[in-house]
Amino acid sequence: MNAPVNAPSRAWDTLQRNRAQRLERAAAALGAELDGKSLPAARIADLFYAVLECGDRVCIEGNNQKQADFLAQALAKLDPARVNGLHMLQSVLTLPEHLDVFERGVASKLDFSFSGQQAGRVAKLLSAGKLNIGAIHTYLELFSRYFIDLPPRVCMVAAEAADRHGNLYTGPNTEDTPPIVEATAFKNGIVIVQVNRIMDTLPRVDIPGDWVDFVVQSPRPYYIEPLFTRDPALISEIQVLMAMMAIKGIYAEYGVQRLNHGIGFDTAAIELLLPTYAASLGLKGKIGKHWALNPHPALIPAIEAGFVESVHSFGSELGMEDYIRARPDVFAVGADGSMRSNRALCQAAGHYACDMFIGSTLQIDLQGNSSTATLGRIAGFGGAPNMGADARGRRHASPAWIKAGQQARAGRNMIPRGQKLVVQMVETFREHMHPAFVEKLDAWELAKQAKMELPPVMIYGDDVTHILTEEGIANLLLCRSDEEREQAIRGVAGYTPVGLGRDRRMVENLRDRGVIQRPEDIGVDKRLATRDLLAARNMKDLVRASGGLYDPPQRFRNW
Amino acid sequence: MNAPVNAPSRAWDTLQRNRAQRLERAAAALGAELDGKSLPAARIADLFYAVLECGDRVCIEGNNQKQADFLAQALAKLDPARVNGLHMLQSVLTLPEHLDVFERGVASKLDFSFSGQQAGRVAKLLSAGKLNIGAIHTYLELFSRYFIDLPPRVCMVAAEAADRHGNLYTGPNTEDTPPIVEATAFKNGIVIVQVNRIMDTLPRVDIPGDWVDFVVQSPRPYYIEPLFTRDPALISEIQVLMAMMAIKGIYAEYGVQRLNHGIGFDTAAIELLLPTYAASLGLKGKIGKHWALNPHPALIPAIEAGFVESVHSFGSELGMEDYIRARPDVFAVGADGSMRSNRALCQAAGHYACDMFIGSTLQIDLQGNSSTATLGRIAGFGGAPNMGADARGRRHASPAWIKAGQQARAGRNMIPRGQKLVVQMVETFREHMHPAFVEKLDAWELAKQAKMELPPVMIYGDDVTHILTEEGIANLLLCRSDEEREQAIRGVAGYTPVGLGRDRRMVENLRDRGVIQRPEDIGVDKRLATRDLLAARNMKDLVRASGGLYDPPQRFRNW
Repeated sequence: MNAPVNAPSRAWDTLQRNRAQRLERAAAALGAELDGKSLPAARIADLFYAVLECGDRVCIEGNNQKQADFLAQALAKLDPARVNGLHMLQSVLTLPEHLDVFERGVASKLDFSFSGQQAGRVAKLLSAGKLNIGAIHTYLELFSRYFIDLPPRVCMVAAEAADRHGNLYTGPNTEDTPPIVEATAFKNGIVIVQVNRIMDTLPRVDIPGDWVDFVVQSPRPYYIEPLFTRDPALISEIQVLMAMMAIKGIYAEYGVQRLNHGIGFDTAAIELLLPTYAASLGLKGKIGKHWALNPHPALIPAIEAGFVESVHSFGSELGMEDYIRARPDVFAVGADGSMRSNRALCQAAGHYACDMFIGSTLQIDLQGNSSTATLGRIAGFGGAPNMGADARGRRHASPAWIKAGQQARAGRNMIPRGQKLVVQMVETFREHMHPAFVEKLDAWELAKQAKMELPPVMIYGDDVTHILTEEGIANLLLCRSDEEREQAIRGVAGYTPVGLGRDRRMVENLRDRGVIQRPEDIGVDKRLATRDLLAARNMKDLVRASGGLYDPPQRFRNW
Repeated sequence: MNAPVNAPSRAWDTLQRNRAQRLERAAAALGAELDGKSLPAARIADLFYAVLECGDRVCIEGNNQKQADFLAQALAKLDPARVNGLHMLQSVLTLPEHLDVFERGVASKLDFSFSGQQAGRVAKLLSAGKLNIGAIHTYLELFSRYFIDLPPRVCMVAAEAADRHGNLYTGPNTEDTPPIVEATAFKNGIVIVQVNRIMDTLPRVDIPGDWVDFVVQSPRPYYIEPLFTRDPALISEIQVLMAMMAIKGIYAEYGVQRLNHGIGFDTAAIELLLPTYAASLGLKGKIGKHWALNPHPALIPAIEAGFVESVHSFGSELGMEDYIRARPDVFAVGADGSMRSNRALCQAAGHYACDMFIGSTLQIDLQGNSSTATLGRIAGFGGAPNMGADARGRRHASPAWIKAGQQARAGRNMIPRGQKLVVQMVETFREHMHPAFVEKLDAWELAKQAKMELPPVMIYGDDVTHILTEEGIANLLLCRSDEEREQAIRGVAGYTPVGLGRDRRMVENLRDRGVIQRPEDIGVDKRLATRDLLAARNMKDLVRASGGLYDPPQRFRNW
């Protein structure tokens, strides 16, 4: 009597048949202009009309750096009477066209990770009802959903070159391409690629042609943003001081060998102090050996000084190509000599194989929650939440991880466990004298505005282990109550209202216990905190350090 | 004065030059017998002597299922006077040869994830000093280290077929191959592949030939283990009862749509109750829609009944090939019609895109820590810690995740956050009347024996949200103190000493609060808990449910 409740007989190959129909429509529309998998750039709209269906989930490669810009522009120009209701999936919204599709009614729903410069426009389109947000993710999380409940029906990606079989060479800027194409191709979706060139023989194959349906040579090379380049000339002496504290108070203290750095001047300063300050402390070979990191130009002096053993990257960085090619022991390069990046695998590595994440933020509250959300801007998360979270599934030990775990658990009835170091580095006041420490994050108000289910917290307080400001280091691992944690945070919050609201006696007590450490407590001499300590003081120094191999983008040159 | 401390000028291409030397030695050793990348099976030892160097990090593809067994056997036969001190990297130690390399002195160090049947021998070799363990990992964590601090110098993998360019077809059993090959090829390592066949044209390319150095057709097809097949005939009525409780008390309660199941009869029972019990509760379309799961045969009836919308897999399962090919809407298949699996990406998906992990364990302590470690056996972790840990970097919401997070945080001064459901399902007594609940895990003693830095805990108590036994469900999310948590666990621990040690009054109070739920509290009628409720009661039923498409391995047939 309890036999299975069988569904009526149904078709099990709807995706396959639908894919075949789309391919047939494309063949019919393009006729002889379809040369194998390749079509002329001028026919891209015809391809889109043929293969897209209203309501499709469409993943467009909007990466942190590389952009499938030609395809994004063509998509934004489609007639919304013919193609509409698309559900866009993408890592990053960078180009105006990424939002034009919503403005024009071609697309209506969005799942993404980061919106950077377009954050204000995302908020406006949302309140104008032109855009529904499914959710905001961290990168690896969004890729993960492509394989579970958000497989793209059509994906549009960018590669350096293709051959006539559709094999792709993505070279240094592989970034997000592999999981996007894999998720689409293995769910009977349609894979469309814009390439800078079509070649007879590729330097190497990064994506097999079997996974690719259509290739179009774009009129211009894809747009790419040098997102991780920081001019050392703009690093302040406060940042030098904070970098010294980070190196002596955290890197050396825990013996951090495997790590990820966030983006920004704070961590660039650390990179530039490795061959000077850290070397003078005898730390070469003891800290900063293995990195999950894009090829930051600021890392050149540390590489040249022999600090850095290896770097695995999410993406590449413009101008670093020749330098990388000349340093194959350090970077992940193929037999052809050029780098391979892979955001999905590097994010996994950042999560599981690194002992520390250190980055900057805009606001920190009294529980240590930090956020880069500001009102009227829906900026998203990018990669930080994945790397700035304790990797609770990690099981292999390292001295840094064990020590952090011990500090968090000492005197508590808890089973021993390691813990990731998650460091937030902020000056107490940011630009325009906005305090970095607040009673309540702007994220709460933004959540209300944008009807989010949770306030958009970048890194949660219970994952943060250290907060570092110019006033000192708060080691939250050593706090034993919410009250202690709050006072430890107030104790490094300087002259902000949060800092002024400290309980002086309790803060002094925390300092005596080493929960709060001032520069002088760890032997950091503030007088040494000058820009002279930087291994490169401007872009030209970086070029010089690279032996002339680093070729900065025009906007970073004044020569 | 603070100029960078430059290292003396050094070579930056040692890996590249060393790779070239290895390739030259191979060419010299094999001469005309090297046909492009392909060599005769009889010359495998010569290839190994040519490309291996003492102390190399060597990754051999020992997967959960597929084994590079021909290469493992050849490696184990090498003369330790010529090749020794290898540092083996591998997901799973399954074959005797995986340990023979240590016994014979060819290898001396090991980093791995899981040792299954070889767990006793790992322990023996360790105490005999023949093997040093670097660390024990979860799968994704081990892959992650391949890109950071453990890049393989040589990798040895298995594929279904290769073409004469070295392109690989891994088909349904792709498993761990992609990250292993990527980490090796892009660090100037050597990639060696055993294939079942060499073909002119592959069904599709899974790994580009550019990443592959040597291909050898093995005398026999690679060994593969049907690890996820469970005969429904062996499911007990207690397991049916527990499955009913899981479905009604957890799946329905939280509306769990995206999930992963562990291996074993407990979760097989749940799979087999979806089209019967769950359907009768009106749960079709409400639970169990998207899965990160291998193609478990026990899932066939739920697929046929329309419960399951999609399955993305770590690896395949023997005998499921034709069924998968006939259900392309459900599985991830390529344009050629066969499945693609990918353990790295599916583990990421299990971590980030699933709302629940549910699995079994051997021992649970009073804090909820669970372990499968037993004395004298170093078994490792596999994939469970990654999926059975809260994904603290996750940022997208779902009803299940939000509800779990709310339960954990209600009445506490904590910022709202979602939480993953992590369910441990055990009978209070396991085989031979060993209690599943213990005061102290055997893992502690094993850690001492094997000089591990931490006891090998599979899933930590602070990540577990529910413990389910035949006595009831303990919802640890609702506990507000260590004492409550302990009593909640004792309260479902039955007649084990831990269960008998409960504070009856406190347990009744926890039951009143819904922290502990008995079957009758959630309307589960124990009288219905019979094997009649299973949608398939034996292997033949599974074959029948599949319309004859499932073809079980011989050992699972009695017909």
